[in-house]
Amino acid sequence: MHSPTAKVSGFVVLMIVQIIFLVLFWLFVRYEKTALPRAIDAEDAGSANEHVSKYPQFQDIQVMIFIGFGFLMTFLRKYGYSATGFTLFMAALVVQWAVLMKGFLHMEGGKISLSLENIIDADIAAAVPLISMGALLGRTTPIQLLCMSIFEVALFAANEYLALHVFSICDCGGSITVHAFGAYFGLAVALMLRPASDQNEAGKLEGASYTSDIFAMIGTTFLWVYWPSFNSVLAEGAGGERAILNTFLSLAAATVTTFVVSALVSHENKLDMVHVQNSTLAGGVAVGTVCNLLLGAHGAVLIGIIAGTVSVLGYRYLTPWMTSNLRLHDTCGVHNLHGMPALISAIASAIYASMATVGDYQSELQDIFPAMVGTNGTETKILGGLGRNATSQAGYQLFGIAVTLLIAIGGGILTGAVLKYTNFRNLKKDEHHQDEHYWEVPAVENKEE
Amino acid sequence: MHSPTAKVSGFVVLMIVQIIFLVLFWLFVRYEKTALPRAIDAEDAGSANEHVSKYPQFQDIQVMIFIGFGFLMTFLRKYGYSATGFTLFMAALVVQWAVLMKGFLHMEGGKISLSLENIIDADIAAAVPLISMGALLGRTTPIQLLCMSIFEVALFAANEYLALHVFSICDCGGSITVHAFGAYFGLAVALMLRPASDQNEAGKLEGASYTSDIFAMIGTTFLWVYWPSFNSVLAEGAGGERAILNTFLSLAAATVTTFVVSALVSHENKLDMVHVQNSTLAGGVAVGTVCNLLLGAHGAVLIGIIAGTVSVLGYRYLTPWMTSNLRLHDTCGVHNLHGMPALISAIASAIYASMATVGDYQSELQDIFPAMVGTNGTETKILGGLGRNATSQAGYQLFGIAVTLLIAIGGGILTGAVLKYTNFRNLKKDEHHQDEHYWEVPAVENKEE
Amino acid sequence: MHSPTAKVSGFVVLMIVQIIFLVLFWLFVRYEKTALPRAIDAEDAGSANEHVSKYPQFQDIQVMIFIGFGFLMTFLRKYGYSATGFTLFMAALVVQWAVLMKGFLHMEGGKISLSLENIIDADIAAAVPLISMGALLGRTTPIQLLCMSIFEVALFAANEYLALHVFSICDCGGSITVHAFGAYFGLAVALMLRPASDQNEAGKLEGASYTSDIFAMIGTTFLWVYWPSFNSVLAEGAGGERAILNTFLSLAAATVTTFVVSALVSHENKLDMVHVQNSTLAGGVAVGTVCNLLLGAHGAVLIGIIAGTVSVLGYRYLTPWMTSNLRLHDTCGVHNLHGMPALISAIASAIYASMATVGDYQSELQDIFPAMVGTNGTETKILGGLGRNATSQAGYQLFGIAVTLLIAIGGGILTGAVLKYTNFRNLKKDEHHQDEHYWEVPAVENKEE
Repeated sequence: MHSPTAKVSGFVVLMIVQIIFLVLFWLFVRYEKTALPRAIDAEDAGSANEHVSKYPQFQDIQVMIFIGFGFLMTFLRKYGYSATGFTLFMAALVVQWAVLMKGFLHMEGGKISLSLENIIDADIAAAVPLISMGALLGRTTPIQLLCMSIFEVALFAANEYLALHVFSICDCGGSITVHAFGAYFGLAVALMLRPASDQNEAGKLEGASYTSDIFAMIGTTFLWVYWPSFNSVLAEGAGGERAILNTFLSLAAATVTTFVVSALVSHENKLDMVHVQNSTLAGGVAVGTVCNLLLGAHGAVLIGIIAGTVSVLGYRYLTPWMTSNLRLHDTCGVHNLHGMPALISAIASAIYASMATVGDYQSELQDIFPAMVGTNGTETKILGGLGRNATSQAGYQLFGIAVTLLIAIGGGILTGAVLKYTNFRNLKKDEHHQDEHYWEVPAVENKEE
Repeated sequence: MHSPTAKVSGFVVLMIVQIIFLVLFWLFVRYEKTALPRAIDAEDAGSANEHVSKYPQFQDIQVMIFIGFGFLMTFLRKYGYSATGFTLFMAALVVQWAVLMKGFLHMEGGKISLSLENIIDADIAAAVPLISMGALLGRTTPIQLLCMSIFEVALFAANEYLALHVFSICDCGGSITVHAFGAYFGLAVALMLRPASDQNEAGKLEGASYTSDIFAMIGTTFLWVYWPSFNSVLAEGAGGERAILNTFLSLAAATVTTFVVSALVSHENKLDMVHVQNSTLAGGVAVGTVCNLLLGAHGAVLIGIIAGTVSVLGYRYLTPWMTSNLRLHDTCGVHNLHGMPALISAIASAIYASMATVGDYQSELQDIFPAMVGTNGTETKILGGLGRNATSQAGYQLFGIAVTLLIAIGGGILTGAVLKYTNFRNLKKDEHHQDEHYWEVPAVENKEE
Repeated sequence: MHSPTAKVSGFVVLMIVQIIFLVLFWLFVRYEKTALPRAIDAEDAGSANEHVSKYPQFQDIQVMIFIGFGFLMTFLRKYGYSATGFTLFMAALVVQWAVLMKGFLHMEGGKISLSLENIIDADIAAAVPLISMGALLGRTTPIQLLCMSIFEVALFAANEYLALHVFSICDCGGSITVHAFGAYFGLAVALMLRPASDQNEAGKLEGASYTSDIFAMIGTTFLWVYWPSFNSVLAEGAGGERAILNTFLSLAAATVTTFVVSALVSHENKLDMVHVQNSTLAGGVAVGTVCNLLLGAHGAVLIGIIAGTVSVLGYRYLTPWMTSNLRLHDTCGVHNLHGMPALISAIASAIYASMATVGDYQSELQDIFPAMVGTNGTETKILGGLGRNATSQAGYQLFGIAVTLLIAIGGGILTGAVLKYTNFRNLKKDEHHQDEHYWEVPAVENKEE
């Protein structure tokens, strides 16, 4: 049915990729100065600890990537090994690749400086192909995931550079550069890999079991709990505290709303675990880009209510429509958890940017909207007329999401084409959503269990 | 059997509650100064980070509330969706309500200042109705839980204000104000909702399956691990380190003791998972009120031994007695995990308070027992005769728990009466302890699984 | 079949042990000065917080010990209660014993000073018997585990003192003193308890079920995520940041390599969950001893690749060979996860030590290789000729692992002999790997589940 030779050659390619990483690390990567021993006669002692002050938030994000995403995807009844295992595999691959790719864009003297910041960035980058994997869950081989990750992370790094450093948009929690990019890239790949029209019905394994649903709640809950760390880790000063507060309140409001809307629109008014597992988190995505702005508690709550509503309605109506009409399967519903809430976040960022004033943001304007103070990080006169005005910044926010969508969808279509039409093995319909094609699975358990 | 209309109207009420929260946030809540941008010409730069120094402990508490409580309650074989889902729902609801309710008690200029501290307090407040929910687990509708939470958190905030700011009792880890309150409130509600005497036998779903018991251990273990954060988060200075050390040692001793007593009193001397899941944590509750005092390692260990013993004996003998004789079902045994250990903690606090001297506590006396230095936080002369003496402080500790019990039980009875005799739908006996009345549950799995 | 009386007397012994701990705490343990109230007229206010700056890392290690080890061992289909329960029990016992045993080696004025540092050390010590338990999983009684832990932790504390303070080896992440010690001690005990030659075939319960494998991934993933905290918690200054970076990269490389090698060597080229659950972590062990050295990113990645390869090959070929030929069962394969990777780490430490120069390590040389600056922590002249040279330090690294192996294996054989030939009850073959001999297990579930 599937040839072991193809599998073997795929894994050999993976080993070669890992060895190329090794060589690139050797050639290009060096510890940053803060991670090197101080000279014997140096004076400033205590600064080392300062430099790792974001370590607890980094660890929270680690849990989100490895536990959060991994377990969120265990909801399929026979795909738990792949959900947790391939998450581990992809994240381990991508963090290395992201250190290199993002490093190449910020080299000094031909070398990449390695510090805690780089691996925080790498963890955030790992979220991108994991989001895309959610759209494709159960319908790709690990070697296809490998290939997709390599392409996607390179494009992600380029797009992020463009958005943050060229267009100077604000995107503190990464809803535009991470969530929208990952979701629409994955959906574009899924569109390219869509089944023939006579094979479009959902497989019987494309659903949950009682136990697998509870495993998935492990993922949901850790993502919920640590989301404030994801959104705030790159914020500066008091913006960090606002990012925490706004994310927390938006998640809480989205969660309550999810329960309401789920009960109102579902069959027999029963709650649907898919909504609870996913739409409760939409508040974290929708507040992402604007989490460090002066939303006020009510702004955060309002964004959460909108996000929860849109997300549940997406699961209930839009996803089935896309499956039937476009043959676009979105296994985890990343469009409802990451895609649309990220669009909400982008729109919110344009609205709040259009209202930003020096009077409100004071000394933080430079951190949050550097282009509005006529500078991208160097010295400036804050009140000067060199920068963008608020309306212009709002326009750039919308331009940023538009370019992101363009690159994500274009890149996804190209990547999907490569996966479909070149030499990669594609899974057949009856191989979908089950572990046993790639994993040794225990034989059927005996009756007494 | 149950009318969808009732369900729908319940969820509509919930949406209205969420929108009322939105309006209240808009009217009353503003970021605290530390979370606002500094003025451009301000000088004190580094203080923002200082202000969020408790963020890692906050995150630990988040895990306790959402993962810890949620998974601890998954032990029922057919109630895992509700355990994890309703925990998420109630916590998301209560944190918003708690920010408002506790905020109203500390308004300045008609506004509530929002900072990290408020959401730490809100997470702690979320523990209260979740403890009560443990007593009722599987026997209430989500709308009853909503109603209970709203009443309970308001009363909790009032009682806490009374205990800490009027009676000036010490309660660092919240055993009196959180654990005792939540447990006895929940038991009082359970008493009001008790079954008719001919329906008192335990249902066949009121027990664990092999898998559900292991899910519950996720909850237990995270609660165990992060309990030192719960107890120490509000402690000041060196008291914070003592709170960590004492909680850790008390938990360890309670755990060892739980295994011993469980084996000695159980059927065939086999260990009982209910004890391991719950009584191991009793050490954290029993040391709560006194965790920042000068207990010494031996004091903490002794408290742990007593708590483990009392808790296991409670599960083994007292809970079945209450079920048979009072028809008081306590699904999770919160009386044994939260109720009695909290009473132990209150008694311990009276004992240690009666021995407190300025010589021992030095400059910390003011933080820990402010009334003993004749002040509640303003300037004072520490050695002066204005304050309470130690015996009097001990008396106030006992008075504090007594008032807490009174308000909790009284409030619980009233709330239970509202839930029972007003328009709320009550679950019937055969609807207890199963998800399928409120959740879409996968159809019976096919044989091969 | 097994006498309740023996069980009862075992648990009574355990209670006596707990009470002895209580007495020892009372006699010998006092809070360290930092955890005591400051005198009223003292000046240095802010230092208390400083002292608990490692608290977040401590909490990460707590999760590793209790959740990580506990759930990693749930992979057996009918041993999940024991895996999570006995981990909780042993860790709670050992942390108390470790505070005492390690304290006795560093007493001042006849008293042990208790601070956060002691319980960090105690948590690390708890890893040691938990690693050994992995080798024996399912084949010992809890009372045998109790006895083993008491012996093992005493020997561990002595060996660690010898290695770090007498031989002055570097072992930042504890691969030599913790992982090698725990693994070879456990294997030596397993050798002593090996089955008669006619009972050597693997039992049908010595394997996973689909659900138990996913539970085990909870353990794997938390260990993976928090391993940087384990390795870096005792590092000083910039070495702490290097420890984080090196551990992270080594884990990532080991993970990718594990997937490759597992697919290449397994039956039908399918991935094996045992490899994914365990060998992905080998990178954390193999980088442990050297994690704070100047490995460079490439050094860390190379170590990870080697560790992943060796570990998978060990599971695939060496463990079955040991089972067949030596009757040495290693249930969790601790030899492949902890044993061999720790040897790799020791060899790496000799290589890197042989290249260490003052020019590279500057002011950190004293922290990392104190004997090379002619001092073990007191004042010194860094460039003086009193210290060891690099080659000599390399020799000491090898000497350190050799002595560790000697003490671990010798101690394990002695302990195993005590467990086998004295009065302890030994489990019979048909009692292996199942919970029901020590736990009340739910009756067989009814059909509809």
